[in-house]
Amino acid sequence: MRNFISVHDVSNINDLVAKALVYKADPLKDKSLGKHKRIGLLFLNPSMRTRLSTQIAAQNLGMEAIVFNVGQEGWALEFEEEAIMSGSTVEHVKDAAPIMGKYFDILAIRTFPSLKNRDDDYSELFIKQFIKYAGIPVVSLESATLHPLQSLTDIITIQENSIIPMNVERGPLWTQMERPKIVLTWAPHVKPLPQCVANSFSQWVNAWGQADFVITHPEDYELDTQFTNGATITHDQNEALKDADFVYVKNWSTFNHEYGRIYTNDPGWMMTNEKLALTNNAKVMHCLPVRRNVELSDEILDGPNSIVTQEASNRVWAAQAVLAEILKANH
Amino acid sequence: MRNFISVHDVSNINDLVAKALVYKADPLKDKSLGKHKRIGLLFLNPSMRTRLSTQIAAQNLGMEAIVFNVGQEGWALEFEEEAIMSGSTVEHVKDAAPIMGKYFDILAIRTFPSLKNRDDDYSELFIKQFIKYAGIPVVSLESATLHPLQSLTDIITIQENSIIPMNVERGPLWTQMERPKIVLTWAPHVKPLPQCVANSFSQWVNAWGQADFVITHPEDYELDTQFTNGATITHDQNEALKDADFVYVKNWSTFNHEYGRIYTNDPGWMMTNEKLALTNNAKVMHCLPVRRNVELSDEILDGPNSIVTQEASNRVWAAQAVLAEILKANH
Amino acid sequence: MRNFISVHDVSNINDLVAKALVYKADPLKDKSLGKHKRIGLLFLNPSMRTRLSTQIAAQNLGMEAIVFNVGQEGWALEFEEEAIMSGSTVEHVKDAAPIMGKYFDILAIRTFPSLKNRDDDYSELFIKQFIKYAGIPVVSLESATLHPLQSLTDIITIQENSIIPMNVERGPLWTQMERPKIVLTWAPHVKPLPQCVANSFSQWVNAWGQADFVITHPEDYELDTQFTNGATITHDQNEALKDADFVYVKNWSTFNHEYGRIYTNDPGWMMTNEKLALTNNAKVMHCLPVRRNVELSDEILDGPNSIVTQEASNRVWAAQAVLAEILKANH
Repeated sequence: MRNFISVHDVSNINDLVAKALVYKADPLKDKSLGKHKRIGLLFLNPSMRTRLSTQIAAQNLGMEAIVFNVGQEGWALEFEEEAIMSGSTVEHVKDAAPIMGKYFDILAIRTFPSLKNRDDDYSELFIKQFIKYAGIPVVSLESATLHPLQSLTDIITIQENSIIPMNVERGPLWTQMERPKIVLTWAPHVKPLPQCVANSFSQWVNAWGQADFVITHPEDYELDTQFTNGATITHDQNEALKDADFVYVKNWSTFNHEYGRIYTNDPGWMMTNEKLALTNNAKVMHCLPVRRNVELSDEILDGPNSIVTQEASNRVWAAQAVLAEILKANH
Repeated sequence: MRNFISVHDVSNINDLVAKALVYKADPLKDKSLGKHKRIGLLFLNPSMRTRLSTQIAAQNLGMEAIVFNVGQEGWALEFEEEAIMSGSTVEHVKDAAPIMGKYFDILAIRTFPSLKNRDDDYSELFIKQFIKYAGIPVVSLESATLHPLQSLTDIITIQENSIIPMNVERGPLWTQMERPKIVLTWAPHVKPLPQCVANSFSQWVNAWGQADFVITHPEDYELDTQFTNGATITHDQNEALKDADFVYVKNWSTFNHEYGRIYTNDPGWMMTNEKLALTNNAKVMHCLPVRRNVELSDEILDGPNSIVTQEASNRVWAAQAVLAEILKANH
Repeated sequence: MRNFISVHDVSNINDLVAKALVYKADPLKDKSLGKHKRIGLLFLNPSMRTRLSTQIAAQNLGMEAIVFNVGQEGWALEFEEEAIMSGSTVEHVKDAAPIMGKYFDILAIRTFPSLKNRDDDYSELFIKQFIKYAGIPVVSLESATLHPLQSLTDIITIQENSIIPMNVERGPLWTQMERPKIVLTWAPHVKPLPQCVANSFSQWVNAWGQADFVITHPEDYELDTQFTNGATITHDQNEALKDADFVYVKNWSTFNHEYGRIYTNDPGWMMTNEKLALTNNAKVMHCLPVRRNVELSDEILDGPNSIVTQEASNRVWAAQAVLAEILKANH
């Protein structure tokens, strides 16, 4: 693996999941793999789980991790080629990235979309410029349109929860759920959010191909078909939830027509226990942070069907598997 | 020791002080105790001494320390149960804390009071919610009403300065001061401050029980009696200072009546050399940061009676003793 | 070496450059030199290269580095003696620095000038107060008037680029350029910048003494002669650039008359390929961050004559050489 920007950087999803689960069982298994290697964690935007889990993953591999909050601690970056830099940006990525490439062995970057210009956001200019100019492997800590470390965590967590205990006298103790039904459902929110998590989850579940995948959202919230193609899409949330094994709850802003807006914000789309009753006792997932009683009700988050903490905990093993693959490939 | 939130978490103060002094003499004595253990330092508010000394203490014990400035680098937290999160808070402690509990072995948290609602502040909701939901030991780096690491440092520093050299031909080289007189005096300030340091110092000195303890402040600045009970309280600063061996200078805002306010701000309460003359050549203490020539005069801070640097330096050994106790108890 | 504040702290520049180049060839050569030593990196202002390269240098020497963003994460500092601290500053350097001196073995500090009062800035009060009160070695990460780690990097980079390959059948493979011509040229910018980099570069090149050194700038941009004495100064940029081997491009604000202002901002002073043609195929340098197409044209920065990335990469080895000298001298 050279970079980790999307599912396209992964040759075998199940293999990567298996490696992550090995680290979960034995976090310090490869504690010398990253010896004398250094990762730079660049945050152009806030982060909690991604920030902490990636630092921990790096430490588990024996790497030195240096965190840098680009805008707060350093300089606002310019990404446009040929820019005449007489405005508010202080440094061009063409100058900053090559230096990062000299300072670090791996560069991990978080950069959110503006939600103002769809073409700009979907060109993934920021992270692509880092890849172009850094000269070292680049890991996305969430970019303008995707959040691959989150999606890998999600697949890991789905795999862990697809094991069904068997109550037979003889034979295997458990079996693997065959083609679970996974539903990605839009949820209300108070402010316009990126489409990253929904895009990325769709891209990974489709690439994984071992589930029946349904996406449900109100009209006007269609996602980019380059990510959703392969999924069944419906505006009927109740129909979608029927017999679901996993329900992934997430808000996103509009992609088509007016980009990055809140069109409708129907509180009826909040995930509740009443809706959970429609499912096959589904496990409920969310990437966090979650707006309680807006996106998801307390009763679900505090109840037995929520696996959001497990999901967030798995962030460490997802990051560790990815960093290990990059270290091995770029030895 | 499971958590370290107040003096009630300490079974024997003198024993803990002794352990801190052992670390002061030999900082790397237990440099493997925290091997492969990780502490998360969460700052919801600014910090200098606490931030640095706790990181150093963790490093001395071989732990990995990860610092996270919650509001600046991550998301504003919600602490109220059943909140409908349609406002400015982005993530509930019920969701964040369990994940911290998976990422770390110990969680240390700084969270200031609002000074707007006394009942809310004195319920210690924030730190209690972290304890309730994190599932791992929690260390206070100063909470809404208390600052126990500071108070432990203060007792350590008082013990160190209670040793009196003996000028006898035979016999011991020094002796321990018997029941020193310790005075906590209010001082003026330019903005309303929490009562934490004063509350906590009172709680610890009373629990320690090896001093004559006097608190002096202008009318209207009474502290919560749950912390001060056991001390002599007077509004006559000069009377209080008489024959004092230690003078602890600190501002705090009002607790009774209108909460969190500045009532009177009489510059006559500033600690000066003139007042020092009333004491038994007292050592002068302050938790820092200190407003020079407002709370305390230059002449005192720059003079031989000030032990504020020693006091702040001891923060490392206080933190190290506490982290070591927690590591040993939760092995 | 006790402190590293200016070229005056260096006994032999070439020797220090040589040590830096040894580290460049073998970064972990002295990986135990800083074992159990701790450096505090205090930032009163933003930083990218200095922040990252100094952390990396410290790690390469086996030191523990703790970064502290003073204003953002802690308290605003007061530097004036005898200040009555009833304003916005929360803590006096007289109280903060001695504690840093107890917590750390080396203290590194970045503190920019105000550009409001020349006498204040040029008194270097901030960093001098840290030296006065910390009691441990202090390293400048750029102060009000100088940026010595940058200048050391610059000399290293000039040395590296002064090697000329020889095309002879017998004899040495390369030779060292004799007295290269180095030109420091002012460049336009959109906001008033400190004189630090220009002052410091002048001071170091003059002290080094192995180059023909020319400074060129528009009228009104004279630098302090304490740093420039020894250089040829001209307002004719074209004349200055003639036959130059190295061109150092940098903006600065006014020093004489009205201090810290932009007087003229003639775009004609931007460094371009057309001007490069006047030189002896000069290598082009800049401390970064650079305003592209304001200070320097894209064509130069993206062309073969730019050595800005090499220059910035050498920051690690400059810092490592300095920290190593201080560790050795204060063993």
